[in-house]
Amino acid sequence: MMLCRLKFHKPVRRGRLARSLQLNTAIQHDNMETLYKVNIERIERDLYELRKFGYNPADRGIYRPGLTEPDMEARRWLMEQFSANGLETHMDGAGNVIGRRGAAGKPAIAVGSHSDTVPCGGMFDGALGVIAGLECIRVMNEEGIETENPIEVISTSEEEGRFGGMLGAQALAGALTPDWIERAESADGELLKEALEKCGLSSAGVLRSRLSPGALLAFLELHIEQGPILDKERIPIGIVEGISGVFKWLIRLKGKADHAGTAPMNMRSDAFMGLADFAHEIYRIIDENGSDKSRLTIGRVELKPGYAHTIPGEVDFTLVGRDLDERIMFTLAEACRKVLSSIARKHKLMFEYEERSWLSPQDCHESVISAFEESAKQLGLPYKIMPSGAGHDVQFFSKLMPAGMVFVPSVNGVSHAPDEWTQWEDVENGANVLLNTLVRLSQQKQLLTA
Amino acid sequence: MMLCRLKFHKPVRRGRLARSLQLNTAIQHDNMETLYKVNIERIERDLYELRKFGYNPADRGIYRPGLTEPDMEARRWLMEQFSANGLETHMDGAGNVIGRRGAAGKPAIAVGSHSDTVPCGGMFDGALGVIAGLECIRVMNEEGIETENPIEVISTSEEEGRFGGMLGAQALAGALTPDWIERAESADGELLKEALEKCGLSSAGVLRSRLSPGALLAFLELHIEQGPILDKERIPIGIVEGISGVFKWLIRLKGKADHAGTAPMNMRSDAFMGLADFAHEIYRIIDENGSDKSRLTIGRVELKPGYAHTIPGEVDFTLVGRDLDERIMFTLAEACRKVLSSIARKHKLMFEYEERSWLSPQDCHESVISAFEESAKQLGLPYKIMPSGAGHDVQFFSKLMPAGMVFVPSVNGVSHAPDEWTQWEDVENGANVLLNTLVRLSQQKQLLTA
Repeated sequence: MMLCRLKFHKPVRRGRLARSLQLNTAIQHDNMETLYKVNIERIERDLYELRKFGYNPADRGIYRPGLTEPDMEARRWLMEQFSANGLETHMDGAGNVIGRRGAAGKPAIAVGSHSDTVPCGGMFDGALGVIAGLECIRVMNEEGIETENPIEVISTSEEEGRFGGMLGAQALAGALTPDWIERAESADGELLKEALEKCGLSSAGVLRSRLSPGALLAFLELHIEQGPILDKERIPIGIVEGISGVFKWLIRLKGKADHAGTAPMNMRSDAFMGLADFAHEIYRIIDENGSDKSRLTIGRVELKPGYAHTIPGEVDFTLVGRDLDERIMFTLAEACRKVLSSIARKHKLMFEYEERSWLSPQDCHESVISAFEESAKQLGLPYKIMPSGAGHDVQFFSKLMPAGMVFVPSVNGVSHAPDEWTQWEDVENGANVLLNTLVRLSQQKQLLTA
Repeated sequence: MMLCRLKFHKPVRRGRLARSLQLNTAIQHDNMETLYKVNIERIERDLYELRKFGYNPADRGIYRPGLTEPDMEARRWLMEQFSANGLETHMDGAGNVIGRRGAAGKPAIAVGSHSDTVPCGGMFDGALGVIAGLECIRVMNEEGIETENPIEVISTSEEEGRFGGMLGAQALAGALTPDWIERAESADGELLKEALEKCGLSSAGVLRSRLSPGALLAFLELHIEQGPILDKERIPIGIVEGISGVFKWLIRLKGKADHAGTAPMNMRSDAFMGLADFAHEIYRIIDENGSDKSRLTIGRVELKPGYAHTIPGEVDFTLVGRDLDERIMFTLAEACRKVLSSIARKHKLMFEYEERSWLSPQDCHESVISAFEESAKQLGLPYKIMPSGAGHDVQFFSKLMPAGMVFVPSVNGVSHAPDEWTQWEDVENGANVLLNTLVRLSQQKQLLTA
């Protein structure tokens, strides 16, 4: 795993290269390697086209959750675009849309992302990586670029979590079991298998979507950061070193509900005050045990009985912890447990917790990271090696093949909301990093190695 | 206002007097004043009888909210008991049951409490004061005690708050307006005026229930403490110096909802962390600005959006503050405002609050407090002068006449729950304090003075 670092390869002003690229689709770089550029107008046009599927003018949000009608309409539209650009296109049994450029049977380099959205989502999350992948194909077609390895553009199915998330990637990685598929259910009570059937898919089809080993040589994904770091630090490119691991605890502190007027402050067992004391320690816990990639978040809190005039006798809350280093995750979790135990004793509370999930961190592949870095350097784009705090398909693809991600800035870090936005210049820069990395890797004869 | 004090008038063991009283209904005290005693078996029997109205064997809770059928059945039963013991009994237009001993037209000394309960309430809250009042009448009848002033036993209507609370006391005090009565509504959407009509009462009747000035000379109430102090400190009698004032704020802290994985700890505007920091300061705020009678409670908390993986962008919570001294209440409120402002700035949050209510403290009357003290001393019972953190009818009666309360211990401070309990010996002691105070005051020729 690399340390987080920020490199300004060349002291050039942002935008200089982009402007020069307006003039020539391909330019010669210092070291004589050809640099290619995407057509940002086409990307912009396609993203607005794709936004139409599930767009609600009332709140400007996109409602295209996985395996719904708007999602499937968008996938059929994508298939038309893929085919129109010469890709051999099909939808697999899990709803993944896959378009292939190059000979059948040979291992391919894949690019892409997902095209479903959260309810009331934005127009970049997922969509950007798919449309940028398509644009790469268009540029390669226009430039007549022949590649050693075929290329596949993939729009994965149900990444956002209507049925748990990353369904398409898990299907490709062979991570799903028939039993799980049988039981999976959306928050509004629809069974996955029923949703699949409505879309003309099936449980059996999901299982048949598994890739044969070696079918893909690498997976490259362009995505918005969905966080504030690049925007705040004014860095155009993030290269993802790994996906943070995450644990989720359900915690209960149990004291005694009392009348808020009759119980003196020193005779209370106030469950909420225990939680408040714990929350107050979170920054110290991270300072002492964590890293700059650590996150501890209390997102849900329920007091019982929850009346203004009653001392809370019980509080249930969630604690979600993340880091890119699993040892640090263990240390953080242990520190939280100790602090909670000690606070519970102090406030005369009973403390119990349940670990609802523990997902290990997933490193991106060194060779993909290096390839992205090389492209950013050639393009003169400052970049930052950074973790992804959010989960992505790459977590599952990484189990099968070298995989990596490029991030572009999210204005104010906003995502999963109608005001999710990324400046077109940043989109262009990110797509150029993707394009040049894809071209280089697809022309390499030997397989990627760490 | 008196300072909180604990007096052990005579170094006697608790229970000695009570045992001696088993032998004689009336005994001569040292200073030759006669001491009377209640019959605890009758009180116990009546409390169990009264419990039957609205009792739910499944959870052992009593469901007798004001102006419901079980409440009215209990009131009709009480009227029978009052009449059977020679009281001139009626129900006024607000549902108050009033039984009178002595000549009509003369100002009376009143004893009593309420007979409604919270949903799933206990068998002592309110009921004790009414049944103890009835027992006082029985003893006075048996002893042939003639009094200078008539006596009234009152079971007030809707004290617990189905329609805001203390309805009967407010009606007697003339504190209600036709407009308020017209609009008042229960949490489950029933209008007060409809509930009144179902009970054979009316809005006009509530207004007509107002007492004429001077109709009552004093109001004495025996009640369980509903808090842990007497039980923890093993003191049998509490004499209430006043009802704490109370303010209720609705507070909103508004930050920014973000992805719990992508937003670094130092780039967050986490509304919940602002609340936690404030809650953490509450003990310091009281230490610096409050008294041992101060209470600050956060009872209700709502996070938005309230998802485990999302940083809370907004939190709404209640802050309820109490003290017996209104200047201290002002100081506490101001300190809370300053701390919240400072924490909001630190966490980049917007802070706003709305003061939903501000009830001033209400002192009990010096002469009633002294009369209760005198009785406790004569009975050899240790007592504590203490505030009532909970609201009581006395708040409204105090506006019209000298009023005061006696508390008896609540086991573990529990109330408003099926396991609300007071030991029979404590019930007996409290009722004896009430009885002897009532007898003394009702035989006084001059009015009470502070």
